[in-house]
Amino acid sequence: MPISFRGHRKQYGFIRAARVAHLATADRAGRPHVVPICFALSQDSLYTAIDLKPKRRPAENLQRLRNIMQNRRVAVIVDHYSEDWKRLAFVLIHGRASLARGKEAQRAIRLLRRKYRQYRTMALEGRPIIKIRPTSTCPWGTV
Amino acid sequence: MPISFRGHRKQYGFIRAARVAHLATADRAGRPHVVPICFALSQDSLYTAIDLKPKRRPAENLQRLRNIMQNRRVAVIVDHYSEDWKRLAFVLIHGRASLARGKEAQRAIRLLRRKYRQYRTMALEGRPIIKIRPTSTCPWGTV
Repeated sequence: MPISFRGHRKQYGFIRAARVAHLATADRAGRPHVVPICFALSQDSLYTAIDLKPKRRPAENLQRLRNIMQNRRVAVIVDHYSEDWKRLAFVLIHGRASLARGKEAQRAIRLLRRKYRQYRTMALEGRPIIKIRPTSTCPWGTV
Repeated sequence: MPISFRGHRKQYGFIRAARVAHLATADRAGRPHVVPICFALSQDSLYTAIDLKPKRRPAENLQRLRNIMQNRRVAVIVDHYSEDWKRLAFVLIHGRASLARGKEAQRAIRLLRRKYRQYRTMALEGRPIIKIRPTSTCPWGTV
């Protein structure tokens, strides 16, 4: 059952403030994969673009996308590392991934550009935009 | 076929210098999980402890350990985020996880304590130590 980020105000603020998160996917055979992602939040979803940062493969063939086509279950972690281990913190999000289309993709691009000025001069229109609907969030430490 | 980190000198230096990495696992059903980890390297393996930082569950019941018991395939990412996206970098490691035992576990604890002074006053003996043998490493960006 998808949840709204808004219902978890403190976690929402922590996630929203992060500049980078890590997206874990797994293929049909359960082989995990993980990449750093830039992302933006709406009220109930997290969006990340297959952008024009150089990739080893054409966008359509990226492992994260192939995995999501095979297995929509994903995990995203937003965390803060500190040498003072009393200040470590993370929020772990489990969710379902899909591709955002049409107006939703346009809205996601606006959210990404609002957060990252780097995207304001990068063509994102027509690029795959991954949408993640959280099914659970789990905070740890001083979130 | 396990590989040695030493065969990839530049990647080895990049991985070794990182204070935190992210470990992705998946359960039998392919549901992914990801957590930040502290880790140390030997010539051919990466070690991370189920340490005494507070956990939501007893060590034996942690998701990462349950997943590894069900599915030894894991992915670890070591990455550097910068607002200058020309300086983004990561190394993605795929490997097989197991528990280090006996003398190997003792050596892993020494490596962890050499890297993290925080571990020097924390009891790690008898705690689970995860060993990851890389099967591939994939660098991206300015590693």
